[in-house]
Amino acid sequence: MNKLDFISRQFSRAENKRFEHYVVTRIWHLLNDLSIKFITQQYVSRPEGRALTDMFFPQLQIHIEIDEGHHKNQIDWDKWREADIINATGHEIRRVDVTKDIETINNVISQIIERVKAKKSSIGDFEPWDINAELNPKTYINKGFIDLKDDCAFRTMVDAANCFGNDYKPMGIWTGGAKHPKEIGKHIWFPKLYKNGKWNNSISNDETEIREICEFPETASSHIDSVLKKGIYKRIVFARVKSPLGDIMYRFKGEYELVREKTNYVDGLMWRRISERVNTYEK
Amino acid sequence: MNKLDFISRQFSRAENKRFEHYVVTRIWHLLNDLSIKFITQQYVSRPEGRALTDMFFPQLQIHIEIDEGHHKNQIDWDKWREADIINATGHEIRRVDVTKDIETINNVISQIIERVKAKKSSIGDFEPWDINAELNPKTYINKGFIDLKDDCAFRTMVDAANCFGNDYKPMGIWTGGAKHPKEIGKHIWFPKLYKNGKWNNSISNDETEIREICEFPETASSHIDSVLKKGIYKRIVFARVKSPLGDIMYRFKGEYELVREKTNYVDGLMWRRISERVNTYEK
Repeated sequence: MNKLDFISRQFSRAENKRFEHYVVTRIWHLLNDLSIKFITQQYVSRPEGRALTDMFFPQLQIHIEIDEGHHKNQIDWDKWREADIINATGHEIRRVDVTKDIETINNVISQIIERVKAKKSSIGDFEPWDINAELNPKTYINKGFIDLKDDCAFRTMVDAANCFGNDYKPMGIWTGGAKHPKEIGKHIWFPKLYKNGKWNNSISNDETEIREICEFPETASSHIDSVLKKGIYKRIVFARVKSPLGDIMYRFKGEYELVREKTNYVDGLMWRRISERVNTYEK
Repeated sequence: MNKLDFISRQFSRAENKRFEHYVVTRIWHLLNDLSIKFITQQYVSRPEGRALTDMFFPQLQIHIEIDEGHHKNQIDWDKWREADIINATGHEIRRVDVTKDIETINNVISQIIERVKAKKSSIGDFEPWDINAELNPKTYINKGFIDLKDDCAFRTMVDAANCFGNDYKPMGIWTGGAKHPKEIGKHIWFPKLYKNGKWNNSISNDETEIREICEFPETASSHIDSVLKKGIYKRIVFARVKSPLGDIMYRFKGEYELVREKTNYVDGLMWRRISERVNTYEK
């Protein structure tokens, strides 16, 4: 996929919402900067709850919300449970009221564009959008780490696992996790963070806690016993999600550690985030 | 309808064609001039035949054609016979090849924008787009004339007829024509220029000739006799069309005169354009 392909697909996601569409295309074309990535219709989690923002600049952590003067349809979270929900705690939100006249709207958009430009300038190590590099494990290996701020999501579990010194071949991972060959007592985990088959995992709105529950009575307790016995109490988490464009992706969520006192046969395993940044390794 | 409404509707007409969409929104937002009107998917007739252009600036008579690298679907003219087909003879056509990379496309778009701005500057009496005035007969009465270059189309037959000294009330015209109270031997005519019920009227591609044929054998010849007898041999023509946004409109086509030597019981009445401009009158 090239940038034209990506951008035009993002535009067309808003196609049934004319005013949203006007705003999104106007911001992007007048911003006129191919080094800045954007996403339309980004699901976000915030301490106050989940939401959907209309335009998101991941490098700048700025969201645009378009106010059409009526309540948006309630989001059916059950339908969207597989969605790529990112943690937007501390992100900046800008609003555009499209019930105003076009001159006012254009004026608000100009201010937003100035703010986006200013924020880009203020980031000393701003990384230009590179649509191929962002999907390549090598990018993160060369950088030495993956941080939540990197907006990191891979196409495959293998790509994610190979950031940590592994050398898996394509299609080389068939389970929900991979070894971490460089750091002892740590796994790389690829959970579905929603009810799915025998599992009923979930993540808190602020994304600091993951609850891992096996719902099959015959294996629920033995799974917990097995995790406790293995002694691998840290997990680098890439959640399996559907990307905004509909592809499966593995979204980096940080490093989590087992909270043993909150783990039991009733509530399952509790994992708490201990770092937003993890080291990467050459194989 | 305000400009935001109009513009966002125009954008959404291209919604299933991502690249067309990218180009149209980019040209419009970067042109960034609310005094310039545009239409997407404009049907045009040219001496070489009919066509569909992707973006049209009526004040500047510039069309944009977006080349997606494959033949566009054949236009089903029978389906679109009611369309607002404008005469584009002598208009300027600019092309954008969207099979190129985004930088090249953006560059071509920049050149088009420069050309649009230059053409606007070159028009001494450029009239800024006024979305309300363009539908108001008063605008043309004050101006003193309607010219083909004015891109003139009204919402009702009454609006059109009242440009010529009439004082019809809303819903005051029920037939296909109206009197011209100021110029003797002239009618204002609102034909459907396509096969419709008992009529099979048509206009030539260069729009200089209109053929008026009644297909009901019992009235075909008596209609011709009646026109010849009345002695009203000039007609100001507003063709009944469907606007790009789906509304019925009455599109100014010019003033036509009966060509008696080409009028007969077999071919019907032949009208030939004698002027692209007509005078307007206060009531």
